[in-house]
Amino acid sequence: MKLAGSLVLPTAAALAAKPLLPRQNNIPDYNSAPPNLTTLANASLFDTWRPRAHVLPAYGQIGDPAMHYTDPDTHLFHVNYLHEGASGATTSDLVTYADLNPNSEPFIRAGGINDHVAVFDGSVIEAGINGTPTLLYTSVNYLPIQWTIKYTKGSETQSLAIAIDGGRNFTKLEHGPVIPGPPFAYNVTGFRDPFVFQNPTFDQELDSSNGTWYTIISGGIHGEGPSLFLYRQYEQDPQFETWEYLGQWWSEEADTTWTEAGWAGRWGFNFEVGNVFFLDSEGYNAAGETFVTLGAEWSYSPIVPQVSDNREMLWAAGTNKFVDGKLQFVPSMAGRLDAGRSAYAAAGKHLPSSSQASQSSDAPDRFITYLWLTGDFYGTSDFPTPQQNWTGSLLLPRELSVGYINIANTPLAWQKGSWRVDSQHTNGTLTLATLRQRIAKEPLAAFQQNATNTITQSGGTLSSSQPFDQSPSTKHYLLTASLTFPSRTNHALKAGLSILSGPNERTDIYYQFSNESLVIDRSNSSAAAATTPGILSDDEVGKLRLFDIPGGNGTSIETLNLTIVVDGGVVEVHANERFAVSTWVRSWYEDSTDVGFFVEGGEVEFGEVRVWEGLVDAWPGRSEGL
Amino acid sequence: MKLAGSLVLPTAAALAAKPLLPRQNNIPDYNSAPPNLTTLANASLFDTWRPRAHVLPAYGQIGDPAMHYTDPDTHLFHVNYLHEGASGATTSDLVTYADLNPNSEPFIRAGGINDHVAVFDGSVIEAGINGTPTLLYTSVNYLPIQWTIKYTKGSETQSLAIAIDGGRNFTKLEHGPVIPGPPFAYNVTGFRDPFVFQNPTFDQELDSSNGTWYTIISGGIHGEGPSLFLYRQYEQDPQFETWEYLGQWWSEEADTTWTEAGWAGRWGFNFEVGNVFFLDSEGYNAAGETFVTLGAEWSYSPIVPQVSDNREMLWAAGTNKFVDGKLQFVPSMAGRLDAGRSAYAAAGKHLPSSSQASQSSDAPDRFITYLWLTGDFYGTSDFPTPQQNWTGSLLLPRELSVGYINIANTPLAWQKGSWRVDSQHTNGTLTLATLRQRIAKEPLAAFQQNATNTITQSGGTLSSSQPFDQSPSTKHYLLTASLTFPSRTNHALKAGLSILSGPNERTDIYYQFSNESLVIDRSNSSAAAATTPGILSDDEVGKLRLFDIPGGNGTSIETLNLTIVVDGGVVEVHANERFAVSTWVRSWYEDSTDVGFFVEGGEVEFGEVRVWEGLVDAWPGRSEGL
Repeated sequence: MKLAGSLVLPTAAALAAKPLLPRQNNIPDYNSAPPNLTTLANASLFDTWRPRAHVLPAYGQIGDPAMHYTDPDTHLFHVNYLHEGASGATTSDLVTYADLNPNSEPFIRAGGINDHVAVFDGSVIEAGINGTPTLLYTSVNYLPIQWTIKYTKGSETQSLAIAIDGGRNFTKLEHGPVIPGPPFAYNVTGFRDPFVFQNPTFDQELDSSNGTWYTIISGGIHGEGPSLFLYRQYEQDPQFETWEYLGQWWSEEADTTWTEAGWAGRWGFNFEVGNVFFLDSEGYNAAGETFVTLGAEWSYSPIVPQVSDNREMLWAAGTNKFVDGKLQFVPSMAGRLDAGRSAYAAAGKHLPSSSQASQSSDAPDRFITYLWLTGDFYGTSDFPTPQQNWTGSLLLPRELSVGYINIANTPLAWQKGSWRVDSQHTNGTLTLATLRQRIAKEPLAAFQQNATNTITQSGGTLSSSQPFDQSPSTKHYLLTASLTFPSRTNHALKAGLSILSGPNERTDIYYQFSNESLVIDRSNSSAAAATTPGILSDDEVGKLRLFDIPGGNGTSIETLNLTIVVDGGVVEVHANERFAVSTWVRSWYEDSTDVGFFVEGGEVEFGEVRVWEGLVDAWPGRSEGL
Repeated sequence: MKLAGSLVLPTAAALAAKPLLPRQNNIPDYNSAPPNLTTLANASLFDTWRPRAHVLPAYGQIGDPAMHYTDPDTHLFHVNYLHEGASGATTSDLVTYADLNPNSEPFIRAGGINDHVAVFDGSVIEAGINGTPTLLYTSVNYLPIQWTIKYTKGSETQSLAIAIDGGRNFTKLEHGPVIPGPPFAYNVTGFRDPFVFQNPTFDQELDSSNGTWYTIISGGIHGEGPSLFLYRQYEQDPQFETWEYLGQWWSEEADTTWTEAGWAGRWGFNFEVGNVFFLDSEGYNAAGETFVTLGAEWSYSPIVPQVSDNREMLWAAGTNKFVDGKLQFVPSMAGRLDAGRSAYAAAGKHLPSSSQASQSSDAPDRFITYLWLTGDFYGTSDFPTPQQNWTGSLLLPRELSVGYINIANTPLAWQKGSWRVDSQHTNGTLTLATLRQRIAKEPLAAFQQNATNTITQSGGTLSSSQPFDQSPSTKHYLLTASLTFPSRTNHALKAGLSILSGPNERTDIYYQFSNESLVIDRSNSSAAAATTPGILSDDEVGKLRLFDIPGGNGTSIETLNLTIVVDGGVVEVHANERFAVSTWVRSWYEDSTDVGFFVEGGEVEFGEVRVWEGLVDAWPGRSEGL
């Protein structure tokens, strides 16, 4: 699968389209076959696949999520993203959001001395210069930039801006970049997306003063491989003007992988959007285990200049060790944060228990991350963008923590994968550790509490596909289901659910043991795929191992617990609090709302399925008509 | 002597005035007392003090000379200077010049991505990228910059531009600065004016490949002192994109001096316009002794932010030694390149024997330097600039070499000064070494050969001032004179010449043993000083030691040999090929052209004085009326 014409930009950020038109009234007819959608009036598809419970700007293009922070004064969480620069919103509950500026106007734009052509991702020091939220971001002066081509010296630098007016504006500081380029003589593949953090263990290991700020910068080195570069605030300079390079905190050899078995994608050639954070089983804990999320860029061979075929949204956990006098990250497990090929560029932040959202929900310190779901496949897909008048969305916020699974001691546990054997017990069982990720509890609860219609579908043992007794009447709902498989040896079995289905279209979500994968089959998802370029219909596939669980009588196969959110064109499939695959499903017909059991090639036991229809309008403050 | 309001700019470069008006016909009356000149029509003073044999743009302001080079194709010497960016001219003989562009339009302007606000000094690699002259220059993105204030991070970076169209344009390369800032965590006072050079001894000492390019960058460190930072072309990168920092090649403690006796000014707080080159007794020799010219900035106490009272144009010679693993310059002698307080920012270049000028004059490899003579005292003087329509000039080109003087072994030789005892001879005499500097031989010869009037005035022993039998009728001439003093103990004696004198005005140039100084007394130089701000009338004073010369009967005092060029308002006084003091003398009256012997307080013997009147129009290609 080789896509031609991939953009040279690491994200679609710099291409952010100008707002086009408000929502149009000449709505297409969803009860008959779609025309070539590019022939429709501008903005006529505005509502067709628009999510209502997700973060996205009022119109126009969304790029990477980035720059989130909790305002130290208001305790509101700022959820930000690239959009004509960078824009964002505040939330007091992770459910509803208020745009910082009308029409999602950005709080920072490209065009300054340091960032002539683009503002890329950054991160925020909450109590920064003079106690003000201070943004460290990638200021871009030259394009193109991509790991497949010669790096343009000085194209990416790291600069500062400080919040004014409650974060509605970030004012660029009147000086040059604080990190004016990669370390001396590094022939980098990229050098962007600074992610700041504090950590007492780092302070101790690196002999830093308590409370020192660090940043990693994502990139790589030509001929070597992808890397995260570690910097430290120099001598606790309160102006954050000087950052000390501490070495390549993490490097991988180019074009390698954690495991060729596919549990953790590929490291690729260049890292992007690296986040470093610390988790325990409850959530964020500075004394916890070191985790990383990052985007990896790679290509099939031969590498074509300016084409990055693939991007992976990965995570890793590990330990910090001194090697050759440098602090280095040594992963002990790694995986995909989302298996969707359009899901990328996760940006997370420590959300303190003192935040408004956490106070309301009585949540502990958490690390909350938002992924980007590119709407036009990183700018390479010739999507009918003018007709939709917006492109892309963020996915729902996810809470990350360390997950533990008690399983039977079988060879499945000991293969290298997106888990680690954490402990062996005297009773012969094992505890695995992995990254636990789930949709933040507030939106999950809100979707249930605010459902306009609730469906409960009883399950049972099925050997063929079955329609639900009742299906949703809309394309906005939360669904939970569970599947228990009698055997892992039936490689013909595919079992799961059909969604967004009807006489003309269907989307199948199923698990199969043949390759231990969860699949979203989009081959029949959209009648528009036949008429219109850019309506992608390829499968989304992600590896998920269902382990053997100890029981009274030997072992059973871990139940597959699915949490599916359908929100317009956005479909998120979460499984067992450690797997997610998200994508666009662009069903056309109004009647493509059916849900059903999907079973082929064997037998599976379904638990009760529940559907909460309606979700929540995440943007109550946005004016109608937009 | 404390001047208020000095500019924050290191030079007047960034202030380059836009061209105003062409020369006006409403010429003032130079036969009656001047009005306040600021009341005159714009451009009416265009000719009043304009030099004809010097380098300056067609109109407007000239800043530092910089970026000279010999074109490898044409072998023409490009003499360049800051002017609305940077502009310049070519010369085949060091006498006449041809503007690169009509009206001295610049070949590079500020306003690019790397140099939003200013282009500062740079230097040229003749066979640079793809064999093309390649400019490494200071690209300025933020102002103000001065050693008296906090340094703005990223304000000065070093960038590349390459010559096109024979140097009539320099195209900035489409990437960021190749030296994006000072070394890590250096709190610099300045970081500018890269001066590139090659040197086989450096290659050997630093274990570099043969032919490696080096650059020094001038500046200093707050709380430490002025410094020259040494960089090396990294791995002979033919694109010159990466430069390796090799340390502070030369540093001095802030606010110190080579000697408090005043032979070498003060090192000050910040270095500017440092040049590094290699001389022997003939001229430029890569295997010769290491010399430096540099500008030093300092202030009287207390230091007032944004006020740099003083600038010194200094030279030093010395050796390169490894100290703490770094190559460091250790001076063995130092002095002032010009004692004039307006003379600054010398920019030199190796002028190869293969250059057109040197081929014509059969000259060896030389190091030719041009100084700047600021026309408005670094922008602090409220000069009637609109009336003149130009500001400042370069001084005549000077040839630098190692000078040797054979003298008697007296204590005078052993004091620390702008010389060094090079050898002691068995006959009891000494050879001193110093910087030999003289006006380039081509203009000196041309002024003599092209004189429109020649005056020979016999000398003799005089004990009082005497008019010449014949004086020049213009204010454009070359004059040579010699004075032999009977004794160095008569501290009342002042002896020299009066120039630009008449019934209303006079300028006295004299030597005195009381402080071993050569003085230009401007207190009565200009009737306009009384009516008009910015016509400076303070003395110019420089120290010059006349040594004891061995003879048959004991010793005699070294003869003072003066070479004086009067060219409109520019007066250059050169002595004994090792001293220069240059300044503006803005005589007003048409009849202020008299020359005479000046003697007070004693007796002195004058040799024959010769005057060559007329000089040479350095700009034959410029259209009349400008």
